[in-house]
Amino acid sequence: MTITYTLDVSSAKFSCFARLLMRWRGSIWKSVYRELGSWLIVYSLLSALYRMLLNKQQKHVFEDVVAFCYVYSDFIPLTFMLGFYVSLVVSRWWEMFNCLGWIDNIALYVAAYLHGTDEWSKMARRSIVRHMVLLEAMTLRDISPVVRRRFPTEESLQAAGLITATEVKAMKEIVSPNGKFWTPVQWSMSVIRQARQRGNITSERAVKEIYDRLREYRTALGMLQCYDWVPIPLVYTQVVFLAVRSYFVIALIGRQYVDGERHSVIRSPIDLYIPILSILQFVFFLGWMKVAEALVNPHGDDDDDFECNYLIDRNLQIGFSIVDGACNQELPLEKDAFWSDQVP
Amino acid sequence: MTITYTLDVSSAKFSCFARLLMRWRGSIWKSVYRELGSWLIVYSLLSALYRMLLNKQQKHVFEDVVAFCYVYSDFIPLTFMLGFYVSLVVSRWWEMFNCLGWIDNIALYVAAYLHGTDEWSKMARRSIVRHMVLLEAMTLRDISPVVRRRFPTEESLQAAGLITATEVKAMKEIVSPNGKFWTPVQWSMSVIRQARQRGNITSERAVKEIYDRLREYRTALGMLQCYDWVPIPLVYTQVVFLAVRSYFVIALIGRQYVDGERHSVIRSPIDLYIPILSILQFVFFLGWMKVAEALVNPHGDDDDDFECNYLIDRNLQIGFSIVDGACNQELPLEKDAFWSDQVP
Amino acid sequence: MTITYTLDVSSAKFSCFARLLMRWRGSIWKSVYRELGSWLIVYSLLSALYRMLLNKQQKHVFEDVVAFCYVYSDFIPLTFMLGFYVSLVVSRWWEMFNCLGWIDNIALYVAAYLHGTDEWSKMARRSIVRHMVLLEAMTLRDISPVVRRRFPTEESLQAAGLITATEVKAMKEIVSPNGKFWTPVQWSMSVIRQARQRGNITSERAVKEIYDRLREYRTALGMLQCYDWVPIPLVYTQVVFLAVRSYFVIALIGRQYVDGERHSVIRSPIDLYIPILSILQFVFFLGWMKVAEALVNPHGDDDDDFECNYLIDRNLQIGFSIVDGACNQELPLEKDAFWSDQVP
Amino acid sequence: MTITYTLDVSSAKFSCFARLLMRWRGSIWKSVYRELGSWLIVYSLLSALYRMLLNKQQKHVFEDVVAFCYVYSDFIPLTFMLGFYVSLVVSRWWEMFNCLGWIDNIALYVAAYLHGTDEWSKMARRSIVRHMVLLEAMTLRDISPVVRRRFPTEESLQAAGLITATEVKAMKEIVSPNGKFWTPVQWSMSVIRQARQRGNITSERAVKEIYDRLREYRTALGMLQCYDWVPIPLVYTQVVFLAVRSYFVIALIGRQYVDGERHSVIRSPIDLYIPILSILQFVFFLGWMKVAEALVNPHGDDDDDFECNYLIDRNLQIGFSIVDGACNQELPLEKDAFWSDQVP
Amino acid sequence: MTITYTLDVSSAKFSCFARLLMRWRGSIWKSVYRELGSWLIVYSLLSALYRMLLNKQQKHVFEDVVAFCYVYSDFIPLTFMLGFYVSLVVSRWWEMFNCLGWIDNIALYVAAYLHGTDEWSKMARRSIVRHMVLLEAMTLRDISPVVRRRFPTEESLQAAGLITATEVKAMKEIVSPNGKFWTPVQWSMSVIRQARQRGNITSERAVKEIYDRLREYRTALGMLQCYDWVPIPLVYTQVVFLAVRSYFVIALIGRQYVDGERHSVIRSPIDLYIPILSILQFVFFLGWMKVAEALVNPHGDDDDDFECNYLIDRNLQIGFSIVDGACNQELPLEKDAFWSDQVP
Repeated sequence: MTITYTLDVSSAKFSCFARLLMRWRGSIWKSVYRELGSWLIVYSLLSALYRMLLNKQQKHVFEDVVAFCYVYSDFIPLTFMLGFYVSLVVSRWWEMFNCLGWIDNIALYVAAYLHGTDEWSKMARRSIVRHMVLLEAMTLRDISPVVRRRFPTEESLQAAGLITATEVKAMKEIVSPNGKFWTPVQWSMSVIRQARQRGNITSERAVKEIYDRLREYRTALGMLQCYDWVPIPLVYTQVVFLAVRSYFVIALIGRQYVDGERHSVIRSPIDLYIPILSILQFVFFLGWMKVAEALVNPHGDDDDDFECNYLIDRNLQIGFSIVDGACNQELPLEKDAFWSDQVP
Repeated sequence: MTITYTLDVSSAKFSCFARLLMRWRGSIWKSVYRELGSWLIVYSLLSALYRMLLNKQQKHVFEDVVAFCYVYSDFIPLTFMLGFYVSLVVSRWWEMFNCLGWIDNIALYVAAYLHGTDEWSKMARRSIVRHMVLLEAMTLRDISPVVRRRFPTEESLQAAGLITATEVKAMKEIVSPNGKFWTPVQWSMSVIRQARQRGNITSERAVKEIYDRLREYRTALGMLQCYDWVPIPLVYTQVVFLAVRSYFVIALIGRQYVDGERHSVIRSPIDLYIPILSILQFVFFLGWMKVAEALVNPHGDDDDDFECNYLIDRNLQIGFSIVDGACNQELPLEKDAFWSDQVP
Repeated sequence: MTITYTLDVSSAKFSCFARLLMRWRGSIWKSVYRELGSWLIVYSLLSALYRMLLNKQQKHVFEDVVAFCYVYSDFIPLTFMLGFYVSLVVSRWWEMFNCLGWIDNIALYVAAYLHGTDEWSKMARRSIVRHMVLLEAMTLRDISPVVRRRFPTEESLQAAGLITATEVKAMKEIVSPNGKFWTPVQWSMSVIRQARQRGNITSERAVKEIYDRLREYRTALGMLQCYDWVPIPLVYTQVVFLAVRSYFVIALIGRQYVDGERHSVIRSPIDLYIPILSILQFVFFLGWMKVAEALVNPHGDDDDDFECNYLIDRNLQIGFSIVDGACNQELPLEKDAFWSDQVP
Repeated sequence: MTITYTLDVSSAKFSCFARLLMRWRGSIWKSVYRELGSWLIVYSLLSALYRMLLNKQQKHVFEDVVAFCYVYSDFIPLTFMLGFYVSLVVSRWWEMFNCLGWIDNIALYVAAYLHGTDEWSKMARRSIVRHMVLLEAMTLRDISPVVRRRFPTEESLQAAGLITATEVKAMKEIVSPNGKFWTPVQWSMSVIRQARQRGNITSERAVKEIYDRLREYRTALGMLQCYDWVPIPLVYTQVVFLAVRSYFVIALIGRQYVDGERHSVIRSPIDLYIPILSILQFVFFLGWMKVAEALVNPHGDDDDDFECNYLIDRNLQIGFSIVDGACNQELPLEKDAFWSDQVP
Repeated sequence: MTITYTLDVSSAKFSCFARLLMRWRGSIWKSVYRELGSWLIVYSLLSALYRMLLNKQQKHVFEDVVAFCYVYSDFIPLTFMLGFYVSLVVSRWWEMFNCLGWIDNIALYVAAYLHGTDEWSKMARRSIVRHMVLLEAMTLRDISPVVRRRFPTEESLQAAGLITATEVKAMKEIVSPNGKFWTPVQWSMSVIRQARQRGNITSERAVKEIYDRLREYRTALGMLQCYDWVPIPLVYTQVVFLAVRSYFVIALIGRQYVDGERHSVIRSPIDLYIPILSILQFVFFLGWMKVAEALVNPHGDDDDDFECNYLIDRNLQIGFSIVDGACNQELPLEKDAFWSDQVP
């Protein structure tokens, strides 16, 4: 589910942002608490080992390793890599969001151009809406495990009322090793053609206009499949993922508070049992990384992922409402409240 | 309210920019003075504590903590994170601005294509404008607390003259769990269809052209809702917010001027009571952060937020002016001043 | 005036770029010489003070302050902030440039679609061009102090021949608290409608095509007003401006060549009277900043600002040339030079 | 072949990403193992040389060289250069992907507008699809060595059924020193014109709509050729390539664990035989570089390259399926499952 | 000439990239060898001076200066400035490339819509192509010194067959202080209008479609002039240019290998006669800079500049081929090879 917090930040006061930090769902705390917990446990075990179990000579070895890890962890170019990677992921994430199909324009155009109050016209209008939502469901099933769980089989689509038995049969008759995402579009185009022949659509221009809306919708959903098919190269994701993780694995040792007698670089002014600043760093870097991890596939189960199932339901309902509204009585025009004012 | 300062910077002279610094509304000073004040108070208390109350041994502990905080505050990757985050927020802010609807194109097209000087035509033209402004008000109510305060209920929209009683009733009759933002568009399309049937619009092409303008307007406002519904992932905002704040919490201690005998890193050449450079740093980083905080939801109360209420009024007024102007007498053509010049 | 130097850099030879450095107008030298001069004077005064007037103890204090300023000036995150800010300003600057209206497409379409060789047709064509240039002048007056100086009052627009007395009167009759930028567009649309009725325009499609060109032009100019109305948030500009300036104020002291006996960090290998490298740094950072300062409002007086007045004149002249050319005799077609070649 | 891993990362759990690391195809491991292996071998030889063969004086020289390489390798501005370069390459890579042609829109429009169930109509529809796939194959042959291997000669295109003997002959008759990529488009346009004359296409508008789809497709493929013709400037690629490689050549020596007695900078707290952190750094930087190397020409043999051959086959099959579906019986309209519900 | 190397990098093997380094044209080696050579000569002279001519005291002064230059060269913010500047230049370079006009779409539309096999039709079609290529040549003459050398005068355009004597005369008759780039477009539009009147073009829609293509082409070329007229602000180019050069001027001294007795920072572990790592750094930074220098005006003489002359020839040839092909016999439709397969 998408986490909306914009109302919380409608003004840039400190209190607004403090409240923001209290949230749990979709928050940094929820993202990192598991890994931070594990990290702290291992850190503590190592710390206890050093402080309680090792003899002097072993301690010296441990200190050497600590100094080694502390110094050379600079070799990992973390900040930059993360910065560029997160930028890339965020921009792809938003482009993907823009590819999600909204039924509104299609439905408004169908309602405006496909006239008639008889049953056939109503069926035609509703069919086009249904086909488009079916296309969306078919596409999202392919991409999102959440939608896939809702529609595990083609039968479940039929059970949900998105496709009729006749259509299932027609679709099965098509022999095609590749996806059949074009069938609902073709059905809709065929409905429009019939409506034109019956005179429910009164001009060629109207046909073209509805086709244009269908095409925009289909092209966006096709693009969505492409984003899924060709993700950010695996190497890039792995490099960044590994860099962050290995940085903190090394920090497990490198950030231990040990006797700094022998190595000035790790000589800490105070001996803390809890590595506060390392924890902060952990939270920031891992939180930053988690932004990327959640957005790299925004159709999944994360708190911040797109609500694909909601979108399908919403499109079906809004689409039907709009096209059914087309048969309604037209509102009579009235003079508005500013009719005789020079300036409203 | 938007802060316009472009005239102040029409030339890149030093004086122009000096004048810019004197401003208060929307300025860096107004953004940070509260938090800077609090920070300075806590800083002073700590400083006084160290200088006056602690004994020598306690001072040593304090110095250790200062050295610790000073050294390890480098762990927080502030600059980069802020740089990338502010970039992202600024680009989304501008995209959101571009989604705000301007009535001009719709009104000009309606005025140009929907002919007739009788009362019905005038009502038709004004209705379309009113519906579109209503759509804008409905959308902004959902997003902006400022507009919400102006139109707390649907009745307030009616009181403001944006919607008529008949329309309120019609809208209430529609059963829909989701928003009904499409209704004003459908009403307008229906008005256009009637005008076509009555002959006020003389061609199918004109119908299509006005529909196109309505669609662009509606799509932009729909996009605006999406920007509100799917903000920058909460984790990202939290990470950056926390990083800046914790950096300065640590600096509260790390930037104290203490006796540097025992720790060379914090041995300051001079002992200042006021940490001038830390204050500067505070102003720069927090000011930078405030850019992001103000822009992350640009429909709120901040000085720099979009003036949504003004936009609604402006669109209503300009829209009515344009469509009423359509009935005006046409201007007679005249020869221009360069009529007989070869080159003007 | 825009500074064009592309021909100078048509090849990437050293000499080309050396020549580039010799320029004065719009150059880095012209941008920074004033501030660099002031900085050097204050620097010299401080240097003289230290070398000549202070006694030993005072010198020690001075040296302490120098060391302090030298060390902690690192707190100011200059490079990054400037990098991101300049990127933002440059991209907005170019988007603004793209919003400046060019009359060519409108004029070519009017010439192609609005037929007729009588006086009325010629007046109609020229009126449309004039109205569009008027719209541009009205818009730029609002934004650019340079154009405002040229057209201080509405009368000056009339004197310049951009608007006729009848039109001024018509515009004054419109009661509108907001700008009347839509009036010239509406006049043009009305001219087109008349031409359609008189048969000078032979199809509805042509009407639509010219309307489209007018709309593109108007929308771009409206966008330009938005860029002016909603600039980069003031805080951001102030933060960057302050950061650069305070960096160099601190450098005034921090970069003094003093006796480094007591502070190793400022122990310079040689004692220079002129701080060559600090000057270089000053030139680079301030020059970089000046890029942003000049571009943040590109309609002003700076060397690199857009030549708005030229654009208005150019559009008027080109527009009239194009639409008058429409009445010209058509050129007879000829066989080209490659008529009988298989491959030209 | 494209490496799809989005399902693996549908939630941001640690386990998901751990699984991601296990992959081989397209992975960082496969990218770097060869170069990492070579590097380790040379590193070990040098290490063995130092530890076993050199006498004391030679060791001193070796240590000096190590210290030298260690210190001055900072001169290479690796991180930034890589960051900016990879950003550029990734954005070009995605733009190239968007230029790959998808037949769907063309086929759907042809099926919708080009009526008729006789053999001629079917041939016409199929020809247009075939011509467009031929255009794609011709374009990709020019760009991708993989497609070139599949279609080494023009005859192989004929053998694959993408072009007929008549068409091959017609194409050969055209005398043109430049590519003949426009011929299939012209053939298709000619087929559409014939269909219009025979009445299979019933309006001029339909002709225009199909032309538009063909043009979009052709323009995208033309753009693809441009991306191939004008790559990122060679200098840029060379600079980044060289920087990464020379950094690690220098690291071969600079990262040796030697006796740090004489040079404090290289005095490592522990003496490792395996330079773990240098290996990690190697993996990260080289992996990052490999992202760029694989994407700079995404039509090649790399694991992450676009599957051009698949695309050709897919377009042919989907295209034929769509246009043949046009002749199918139209589906009868039915009431949907929510027919009598107020809200679905 | 554009340097195409994409085939070389079709797979990300080490050997591919090694081969890439061997290239000379457009390579980093060719870019930097002159400046690197000069730098090395001055460096050697200074080195010889220090090693051979100076006495002990002079040597000490020299060493001081070296230490000074070495330490303070950090003041120059090279990497970032270059990174942001190169990003900007590269993105403008590609936008400029996209503004270069390709005749294909125009020619295909003219061939498809302007019917007729008589001489007049052929002349009409060829004229439109010729006018458009003329427009391109006129535009590029203004921008590119290479094209200017090819067409130094307007007569040379006539000699090249791009413009006829009648047209030259017509163009000269137009009094216009500004460029006359619109004349070829107007001539073409006039030809289309004549063709419409003669019936060679059968619908108003076709006229509009060809106009659209002409407009796209003209607008792109107009944009190209704008890119030339309003380059990246001179200050920015100068700042970056100066920063790189002064960095290496300072390095001439700062990177000398001198006796480090007295200054620990410049104490090099080994005394090299050849400053290998400084050379590498020189190559990388200057190479990076050269990317920008070559692309800042991509219409010049550099190896990587656009091949404007080729483009003009190519457009003329392809344009004529396409429009002449229109008269050709239409190909008879045939059944394709997969006619009876269910799945191809």
